[in-house]
Parts: sequence; C-alpha cells; structure tokens
Amino acid sequence: MQFMSDNAARVHPQVWAAMQAADAPDSPYDNDALSRRLDGLFADLFGRPCTVLWTATGTSANCLALAPMVQPHGGVVCHREAHIEMDEAGAPGFYLHGAKLMLADGAGAKVSPETIRAVIDPIRDDVHQVQPHAISITQASEYGLSYRPAEVAAIGALAKERGLGLHMDGARFANAVAFHGCTPDEACGSGAVQALSFGFVKNGGMGSEAIVFFEPGMSDMVRYRRKRAGHLQSKGRFLAAQIIAMVENDLWLANARAANAAAQELGTACGGRLMYPVEANELFVTMTAAEREALRAQGFSFYDWGADAARLVTAWSTEPAHVTALARAISAL
Amino acid sequence: MQFMSDNAARVHPQVWAAMQAADAPDSPYDNDALSRRLDGLFADLFGRPCTVLWTATGTSANCLALAPMVQPHGGVVCHREAHIEMDEAGAPGFYLHGAKLMLADGAGAKVSPETIRAVIDPIRDDVHQVQPHAISITQASEYGLSYRPAEVAAIGALAKERGLGLHMDGARFANAVAFHGCTPDEACGSGAVQALSFGFVKNGGMGSEAIVFFEPGMSDMVRYRRKRAGHLQSKGRFLAAQIIAMVENDLWLANARAANAAAQELGTACGGRLMYPVEANELFVTMTAAEREALRAQGFSFYDWGADAARLVTAWSTEPAHVTALARAISAL
Amino acid sequence: MQFMSDNAARVHPQVWAAMQAADAPDSPYDNDALSRRLDGLFADLFGRPCTVLWTATGTSANCLALAPMVQPHGGVVCHREAHIEMDEAGAPGFYLHGAKLMLADGAGAKVSPETIRAVIDPIRDDVHQVQPHAISITQASEYGLSYRPAEVAAIGALAKERGLGLHMDGARFANAVAFHGCTPDEACGSGAVQALSFGFVKNGGMGSEAIVFFEPGMSDMVRYRRKRAGHLQSKGRFLAAQIIAMVENDLWLANARAANAAAQELGTACGGRLMYPVEANELFVTMTAAEREALRAQGFSFYDWGADAARLVTAWSTEPAHVTALARAISAL
Amino acid sequence: MQFMSDNAARVHPQVWAAMQAADAPDSPYDNDALSRRLDGLFADLFGRPCTVLWTATGTSANCLALAPMVQPHGGVVCHREAHIEMDEAGAPGFYLHGAKLMLADGAGAKVSPETIRAVIDPIRDDVHQVQPHAISITQASEYGLSYRPAEVAAIGALAKERGLGLHMDGARFANAVAFHGCTPDEACGSGAVQALSFGFVKNGGMGSEAIVFFEPGMSDMVRYRRKRAGHLQSKGRFLAAQIIAMVENDLWLANARAANAAAQELGTACGGRLMYPVEANELFVTMTAAEREALRAQGFSFYDWGADAARLVTAWSTEPAHVTALARAISAL
Repeated sequence: MQFMSDNAARVHPQVWAAMQAADAPDSPYDNDALSRRLDGLFADLFGRPCTVLWTATGTSANCLALAPMVQPHGGVVCHREAHIEMDEAGAPGFYLHGAKLMLADGAGAKVSPETIRAVIDPIRDDVHQVQPHAISITQASEYGLSYRPAEVAAIGALAKERGLGLHMDGARFANAVAFHGCTPDEACGSGAVQALSFGFVKNGGMGSEAIVFFEPGMSDMVRYRRKRAGHLQSKGRFLAAQIIAMVENDLWLANARAANAAAQELGTACGGRLMYPVEANELFVTMTAAEREALRAQGFSFYDWGADAARLVTAWSTEPAHVTALARAISAL
Repeated sequence: MQFMSDNAARVHPQVWAAMQAADAPDSPYDNDALSRRLDGLFADLFGRPCTVLWTATGTSANCLALAPMVQPHGGVVCHREAHIEMDEAGAPGFYLHGAKLMLADGAGAKVSPETIRAVIDPIRDDVHQVQPHAISITQASEYGLSYRPAEVAAIGALAKERGLGLHMDGARFANAVAFHGCTPDEACGSGAVQALSFGFVKNGGMGSEAIVFFEPGMSDMVRYRRKRAGHLQSKGRFLAAQIIAMVENDLWLANARAANAAAQELGTACGGRLMYPVEANELFVTMTAAEREALRAQGFSFYDWGADAARLVTAWSTEPAHVTALARAISAL
Repeated sequence: MQFMSDNAARVHPQVWAAMQAADAPDSPYDNDALSRRLDGLFADLFGRPCTVLWTATGTSANCLALAPMVQPHGGVVCHREAHIEMDEAGAPGFYLHGAKLMLADGAGAKVSPETIRAVIDPIRDDVHQVQPHAISITQASEYGLSYRPAEVAAIGALAKERGLGLHMDGARFANAVAFHGCTPDEACGSGAVQALSFGFVKNGGMGSEAIVFFEPGMSDMVRYRRKRAGHLQSKGRFLAAQIIAMVENDLWLANARAANAAAQELGTACGGRLMYPVEANELFVTMTAAEREALRAQGFSFYDWGADAARLVTAWSTEPAHVTALARAISAL
Repeated sequence: MQFMSDNAARVHPQVWAAMQAADAPDSPYDNDALSRRLDGLFADLFGRPCTVLWTATGTSANCLALAPMVQPHGGVVCHREAHIEMDEAGAPGFYLHGAKLMLADGAGAKVSPETIRAVIDPIRDDVHQVQPHAISITQASEYGLSYRPAEVAAIGALAKERGLGLHMDGARFANAVAFHGCTPDEACGSGAVQALSFGFVKNGGMGSEAIVFFEPGMSDMVRYRRKRAGHLQSKGRFLAAQIIAMVENDLWLANARAANAAAQELGTACGGRLMYPVEANELFVTMTAAEREALRAQGFSFYDWGADAARLVTAWSTEPAHVTALARAISAL
C-alpha cells in the first residue's frame, strides 16, 4: 500500500487512450494538430488569453517559465524550501545562466509579501548586488499548503510594484484548485501570475506538463529555449494528447479531488499529529520511529520526514481501501 | 503516403505493450526495476561494459553525452552539416556552457581523420584560441551515409592520439548497423567511441533514447547533468520500458532493416538521381520542381531539399505498398 | 627594432601623467569624478548622446558591448577571421551564455551586406536553428583594412532591416578614423553602430578601453554584467584617467596618425609584396623564409604570417629611424 | 580624513616606480619577463611550489581560483556574508556556469568545520540536490577577523575528508598575516588551501591581484579561463610589475602592518563600542546617528553600517595624524 509519492502513481486510462489515439502520422515537434489546440483549450480554462507549451518535466517547466523574466545577472525570490531550490539539482542556475535564487522564509513553505520584502528590501540598488527579477511561488506548497487567491493576488501586487515577474510552480496546481473550490484563474490570483507550470504528471499523466504564459510575447523566446534544452520532443503529439485528455472533461480536477479526499480522510485520522493543515494531497505527520515501523509492518510504504515524522502522499489512483486501512492503522497507534 | 520524416512514424506495438506493462507503481526517476536493467542489457548487446542513461530526445542525448568530454572553454569537432550544428538550436552551446563547435568538411556529411586534422592542426597551442576537446560524428550521417567500422576506428585512433573524446550521434545508429551487417560494437569502431547517443525515437520508439557510456566514470557526472537539465523524468520507467522493448529480441534491428529495405527499393528506382549512395533510410534525390509537383499530386509527401532535389525518408512502419508505389512513380517520371 | 605588435608598445607620457594625477583618494569603482566625465567627453567627440563604460581589455569590451544585443539562444554574424572568433578563447560564448558566432566571408576580413546575407538568408525561421541577433564588424579589420563610412552605413541598414544589433570592434578604431580623415561618427556609419569597443591599449594606453553605447538603455544592464565579469576595478579612476588623456587634445588621433604614417612608409617600400592595401597600422607582406631571416638578422622582429608572409605592425611609439631602416631593408631584399 | 575604504587608498610609490620601469617593449600578455618571475617569487614566499596568475580584480581572482574545483552542477560552501555571495554581482554563478553558493553561518563572517558540516551534512547524496565541490573562506573575514592557522588547517582537514577543494579569498590576506605574525603559508593552514586570491589592490597596488595555485595542474585550465573572461591584459607586464613591487622587500607586509596599527589605535579608542575584535584593518563600531554626525562634522568620512553602527577602514596610506585625530574624536564622544 503505497503512500510514498504521487510520482509513483499510475497513468490514467483516459490518458492512455488519448495517447494511443494520437499514434497516427502527423507533423513532428509541435506542429501537429493536438499541440495546436492547447492555446485555445487553456484560454477557455482560464478565461483569459494565453500561450501554452508542453514539456516532459516539472523541472524544465519551471525553468523555461522563468526564462523570459530573469536575466542571467538577476535573481528569483522563492521559499528556501522551494522545489527549485531544494530538488532540481541547480536547474535554475543552468537554465537562467547563473541567475541566483534568493531565499525567503514563511511557514509551511509559503512566502508572503512580508517575507519577500524581507529579502529584497535590504538589497542595495547598486551593481555589486544581484537584483531580483522575479518571484516564484509553489501552488500547493512543498508542505501541502495552498495559497488563497487573495494571497496570490497580494504577492502579484508586490511583484508589479517592484517590476518583478511572477511565476507559479503548479506541480500540484490541480490539488490547490480542488481544495479551494476556486477557478484556475483565481488560484493564479486572477491575472497576477505571468507564467504557470501546470503539472499533470503527478495527477494521472505520464510525462507532460504545460507551461502557460499569460503575458503576451513571453512564449516566443521560450520556444527557442525549449528546443535548445532538448525538450522539443519530435513526437510531441503524445505530450499534447496527455494534456488534452487531462483538461477535457476536467479529468485533472476529478483526479485531484480524489487525491485530496484521500488526504482528508487520512488527515482526520492523524488529528493532532498533523504538522500542517491538509490543503492538498500531502501530509506531514509526527510519528515516532517505532510507530512508523509498526505501520510499515502492516504493509504501508511512505517516506520518513526527518527523525520524528512521516510524509504521506495520496494520488488519484490510491485505492480507497488502502486509505481507510491506513487511517485506521494511524488511529490505532 | 508519408516520406517526410521517420520522426512522424508510429510507435511500435511492442513498445506500446512494454509501456503499458510498466504502468504499475514502482520507484520514481530511474530507481525502478526497468531502468536498472539497462546497463546489463547494453553490455550484452555491445559485448563490453557500459552504463546507460535514458533521455527523451536526441538533442539532450547528444549534449549530455558530450558533457563529460568537453570543458566550457573547449571545442567539439563535427561536420559543418552535423545535426548538433544545424538543427539543435544551439543546444551544445547551452549544455556545454559556451563551448564551441569546430566545423569540419567531408562528402556526405562524413568527417575523416584528414578533414578533422584540417580543422585542428592550424589551432595554435595557446590560450587565445579555443582548443578541441572532443570529436562528434553522426552514424548514419545527415545524408544517410554510414561510417564503416574501420572509418570509425581511424577517427578513434586520431582522437586518442590527440587526447580528444569521441562521441557518436547515433540517431540512426540502427540503420547503420543494419546496413553494414556488422555488430553494434563494430559500428562504434570496436571501442573507439566513448559515448554513444543510441536513437530509438525514429525507429519505433515514442520518446526515449539511450546514452551509452563505454568510458568508466563518465556517467557519474552526467546523472547530475541530466537532472539539472530537467530530463530525469519522474515516471522514468516508461522510458526504460521503451528501450528494453526495442533492444530485447532485436526489434531495433528488425525495424531498421525494414526501413533500410524500403530505402533500397526507392534507391533502385531513383538510379542516377541519387545524390548519395543509400546506406540507411534517407534518400537525397535530384528532382525538378515539376517532378516533385507531379509526385505530390499522386499523394506522396516529402521535403524539398533546396531548389533541385527532394529528401525521402523511410521508416519501420512505411507501408510496402506505398514504397512500391513511390518507386514506380519515380521510375515513371 | 620591434614590429611585432602594437600591444607591445609603450604607454604615452600624457597617459602616465594623467594616471599619476588621478592618484588621490576618490570614490571607488566608477563613482569617481573622472569616470563621471566620460559620457560627456564622448558625446562631444561623436556629436551624439552616448554612455561610456571603461574596461581593461578589448575582449571584455567586445563581449560586454554585445551582451545587450544578443540573447543566449541567438547568434552574432562576424567575419570568419574576426578577433572574437579567432583570438578571444571563446569569450563570446562565455559572456553571451552559449550564443553562436555565425561566420561570414569577405576579402581582407571585411564583411559586406552581401556576405552577411549569405549567412543569414539560408537560416530557416524555425526554432531548430539559431537565429541571428547581431552583427559585429572590426574597424580596422584584422588585415588592416578600414571600412568606409558608407560601407558601415550599408551594413547598418541591413542590420536595421533585419532587426539585428550592430557592434563595432574598434581595437584600431583610431587608425581607421585617421586613415579616412573622417569624423569618429562617420567611421561608425553616422549612427549605424549601436555599441562600439573603442580601443586605446594598442594606441598609447596601458589597460583601458571604452565601450560606447549609442543606444539608450543598453548600458544599464551592462553595468551589472561588467561587475559580474569582474571588470569593475575598484580603482577605476585610473582607467578613466587613461581614456580622458587619450581623448582630450586628440591624443588618440595624433598617435594613430603617427602609426599610420609609419605603416605607409613601410607600405611604399613593400610595393607589390603587399597582400592588402595599407589602411591602418598593419601590413601583411609576401616574403620568403630566407628574406625574413635576412631581416631578422638585421635586428627587426615581427611575426610570420603563414609560410610565405610576414606581419608588420607599427605603433605610435615606433621610432622613425627604425621605420626608415626597415623600409630600406625591405627595398633591398 | 578618509576612513571609507582601502579601495580608495593611494598607489604606493614603489608600485608606481616598478610600473614605470616596466614601460619598455616586451612580449605581450603574460609572456614577458616580469610575469615569468611570479611562480618563483611566490614559491619562495610560501615555501612550497605554486603557480601564479595575475588578474585585475578580486572578483575575477576569486572566480578563476574556484573554476578548477567546481563543476557547473556543483556548489561552493561559503559564509552567508562572504564577498562572493554579497558583493560580486553573481560573478561566481557566471564564472562557474550556474554553480550554487551554499551559505554557512559563523560569528564575524567566519565559518568553521561545524558550520560547514551543518550545511553539507543534510544534503542527500542523490542527483536531485546540488552537491558541494569546494569551500571558500575569507582571510581576513568581511568583519575584519583573521582565521588562526589552526582554524584554516581544521577546515582544510574537513575539505580533504569530504573531497572538497579549499579556496581562500585573501583580499586582505596581508592584514591577516601581519596580525598573526605568522608566515604566509601558516595563514593558509600550511598547505590546506589549494587556491588563494592574494590581494594587493587594497594594500598599495593599482589593479593587480595574484591567484596562487598550490595544487599542481589547476592553473593549466585557468589560463584559458582567464583569457576567455577577458582578463589576460595585453600589457600584462604592468600587472606583474605591481605584484613584484609588493612582494619584493615585503612591501605587502609593511603596508599591512601600517594599516593594522592604525586600526589598533582606533580600536583602543573605540573600547566597548567594538562589535568585533580588531584583527585586520576594519572596525565595526556601535555609534548613534548623532555621534556619526558629530564625527563627520569634524571632517571624518566613513560608511554607516546599518542604523546603529559605523564601519571604519584604515589603509597603508592613512595618515597617522588622521588616525590620532579620529581616535581622540571617538574617545570624546
């Protein structure tokens, strides 16, 4: 019974079906009929014009999304536990040609206008210090917290005031939208975000994420950067097909709701053990080594989180029976 | 009837089957059981120890393969019509942090020890000029010519003499092996090549190429570079599955033989129109605009190659009836 | 008797005097009174507004001048024997983060609208090929030829038409201006050039070149790039002092005239041996090994230029007696 | 009466004299007689073999020194207030092609084995996290504290144990040696440091720092990197001359002793106001705005250090009368 990672989850049958339907000759790269549908599909979803590029991974999505906002001599403000800082092997430094990540604080891996200002205000306006060019926030955060629409909007207002770009790492964007019951556009602060990495791989996809640019012109240079990074797959129609399958009929939302519901069920069982409120599909739970051992002995797999806690992750495909079993097992600890 | 690109070809049913068989939870990234099989699989295939990394595209495969050979201040000797020079959007400059491509001549986009020496011998051994660090050759070449094992070995001997790395862009490696009827190892000059980009996408795969390192230690740093480039897919088991399906039971070879046979049939029909011998699955054919128009009117699609020629590409899935039809149509021009 | 390089020439006494006059405490970096005079000084010299940054070397001047024009995924069209291609150790690849030099032909290392078009016109307007972002020309060229004002203007018109930046490597800009007897602005095509590397080191300076930006805003980001490249010297007042000494009272022009006159005297003696007209302070002269040996035996030092020629370079400080002696010796060969 | 920066200090007369003596034709770049003396000069000074390259600035010295130790996908552990992190405009990210600075704590901007371990021990040994490749320490630190020889040796032992390079930013190395009365080699932990940026500009030079490599082979690639960064000045003999003048007859030490003595005199006057012990030529002094105002009214110039403190810097050329005057003025506050 697997609660280790939503990356380990299965590919949704509708995604498989869409990929197989795409297996007919078409133009290579992103000149196929499916890839050309993406802009319109997301414009409908967000209710505002946008351009959309597919790429295989969240890391490349984040870095390519930041590229038009950040010069090599600039910086990106993000939380000190952000995925781009902790888990992408220095990819932003590579893609942004040496630009610097500027680390902000905030409970639950969420930044705020206050914690961002604490980073950027002390920077002298001279050529000796790296100047911030953009802000990157994670929706839902690395601790499973989801920014409220108003919180994103407030960060966006600060970004605008300071002339900074705003990027959202939406590896679990679907879970945040599902949690808040808001629209996708609201989850982006109603126009505050200029570039969104919209994740599908953790939510039923195989290997395709969408980079959504709301700022006109940004995607123009990113098309070159994507190819230059070796991410313009020649059979790109299979990436477009995955995304379309996820967006059409709101499969992305249904999957996220399933994962979130499983997380809520577990959260109720965890009670006071919870280190953070459950606002997506991840739980961070205080638990002794003996308790974790006991759960593993019952067949549950998950990651330790430091010495005294566990991380539990649900996915669209987590079996309800497994969830209920784990919830009972935790209650019984 | 499509003769535009092997990139537009279908995914082989055995590849589909292997991918679907992989759709069970396993460890993410490349810690799954399938990814761990690759080293052994290719060691058997080549008859020498090697380490193997998957990546989604030929461009990333080439650049990651070159990374351990080339310092940012060095250069890579390649043909002036090589894919890395002409068609990868400057990816080597990105992945190699500004390293320079040094362009050599040679008929049919094949370099030789002579044309390589013509590039590197005039370089002064001082700090004002970029020094070569590696050689990259394409097997089969951009004009569909396949290096003989002895030709690769001779280039390898030069590389060794000058202390240069040797990389092979094997986007159509299968076609070259099939054409020569040699072993994979012989097609690499029997140990001359240190890093091989072994292509599968054009030959029945979906989105997975193998980087094969024959030099101990090279893959260690490339594992970091692959992640840093956003090419470590979280559901990597699907990439490993594609490669295994292609290599097991020699599907790669069967597919290449089919594509080559189709190319030979067309080549016979083209006769004196052929600009280069047909040694893989690409044909470059002298043809007037009117002739091309006539063929297109009969339902054949292909790329123009300059003003007076056409490029025809066959694939594993090109239907024999289409091949025969095109052969007849060309003969009838 | 030294004719090897103008880099080996002495520092002009007026430059020494200005440096010593600058040896009083002032603000560090470029906040001193001298550095702040540069914009106005060059605006007067060129008759148009500009911003000016000092840097120690021609290589850093060229690369920093190109930085605001060229994105990492773009290219710079230059002559295939341009200094930035042949003699800067790949610095453009470093400073421009992997951007590509695109090599054009042209007699005497001069490009023209025709040879530039021959490079850029075949580039497909798609993401697979690096797109040109700028043109760089050398005034005077690597073979001592000086672009006519109209030639620069014509290249500028092409640049404008294609949306490309135009940079001039003016390591020997002074010699070109002196040769043509034109204004500095005319030597830049009367507004065609957006960024000029104005060289002083070969012309009586010690270690200071001026980067002159005629395009508003370009210098803003280059100030950061200069610091980031470690070229913002803390005692920058000594670099500013050198430039001011060279520009005030037209020392730069007087020095260039002296060097050019010496070159003309030698040119007359060389007669039919000249490989190129003498339009600056460099001569490329057909000469057998035995003849070169004979000259060296008489105490003249210079570089071989391939197997059958010599390169002779004059400088502001070349002694007239040495020039006359070499002219006679060549005539007597 | 200037106590703002040692960067604003004058150039020592012996340095001027040596530069002028170098003003005769010699081979360009670093092929001149003076540049070739440096290796031997520093081998004598340190009592161990080394290779030495000059460069104009501390920023380029630091970054070039780190280049052979740090791959683009690696990291450099340094103090979070280190000059390379705070004041070099992201130069390490540029020179090291995106490598990451990893920020350690420590009182007075000094790191220790403990604070370094606190940074590197939590890094997972997998490809998702940037791995440390080197450590960089500043001697004397950004707060004017000098590492004891045993402290450097202990950091070196940790570096060796973990396979990390060790770099020392010695912008004020002379002040540290003078303070401890140790040998230069002891100040480097008796062989612990592999590459040292030995600063002269703040200590009586004009624009020349020495990069000293104690590790055989490291300088080979840095020669290329220096040229590629535009730091190989064509009249390099003037940079070598400065360094030789500073090292011969121990001018560097005499100058540092003078600056340190001035700092000690001020330190005594500051008494309990001192935020850090005075171990070099910088003082950080608690002082109200009104007190600073009072000092400035008496003609003393210096930088504020936050809202409640001042930074005072002495130099080799600070006039004793000014020092005494400032000491008295502080005592009288």
